[in-house]
Amino acid sequence: MRNKGLAKLGDSLVNLCYSLAKSEVLKEPTGEKVRDSILARAIRDTLVYNSIGRRTDSGTAADAYEAIMAYLWLTGNLTIESIVSNLVQELDIDSATNRKQEGEIASRAFQKLLLSSMSFLPRQSE
Amino acid sequence: MRNKGLAKLGDSLVNLCYSLAKSEVLKEPTGEKVRDSILARAIRDTLVYNSIGRRTDSGTAADAYEAIMAYLWLTGNLTIESIVSNLVQELDIDSATNRKQEGEIASRAFQKLLLSSMSFLPRQSE
Repeated sequence: MRNKGLAKLGDSLVNLCYSLAKSEVLKEPTGEKVRDSILARAIRDTLVYNSIGRRTDSGTAADAYEAIMAYLWLTGNLTIESIVSNLVQELDIDSATNRKQEGEIASRAFQKLLLSSMSFLPRQSE
Repeated sequence: MRNKGLAKLGDSLVNLCYSLAKSEVLKEPTGEKVRDSILARAIRDTLVYNSIGRRTDSGTAADAYEAIMAYLWLTGNLTIESIVSNLVQELDIDSATNRKQEGEIASRAFQKLLLSSMSFLPRQSE
């Protein structure tokens, strides 16, 4: 999952899904660029993370997250609707939630999404 | 179509659709942030543009474009698939196309998409 193009596509996908989920939770349309640090936190402490090497910076870890989502979406294992509903379930925020709190909540939501999607990933060769 | 939240959601939508269309044309996954200038050019010289005021800067014009797309998508008049296939038809680029050329081609593709979608828009009040 080190494909840069796949990560760039995944970046757009993740931003759209998060924007939709946040719009649904806040009950008004909004858009958001999901920061690398949020996705990096989401992928750390997962089995997937071991396979990309432990000492990666946030950008590399986030790229891995984005590439995985793009891959699962392009292969038909995830839909935008399923990603959004998965995120919405965990996104316990309101208009008073500050940026730092939202980042932590978003990170957990993205981690749960990843964990629930791992069964669709091809097995890592050792 | 001056809703800022709608424009932000539309920003994510436009970026994802363009990324998908470009991936399809180049036959490899890639992602792209569509510049304001591209969307601004796409919306100028259209009837929609008259309604937002002629002397707007690129950011405002692009916001209007993005808000329209988000609106049409949220109301079920456009799907991601239909937006992407519409863009793909016009996106005559390859790996040798430079950034400036791609911008012009993308602008025309987004303009055609807008023109073909205008019938779904509510009529402007005078």
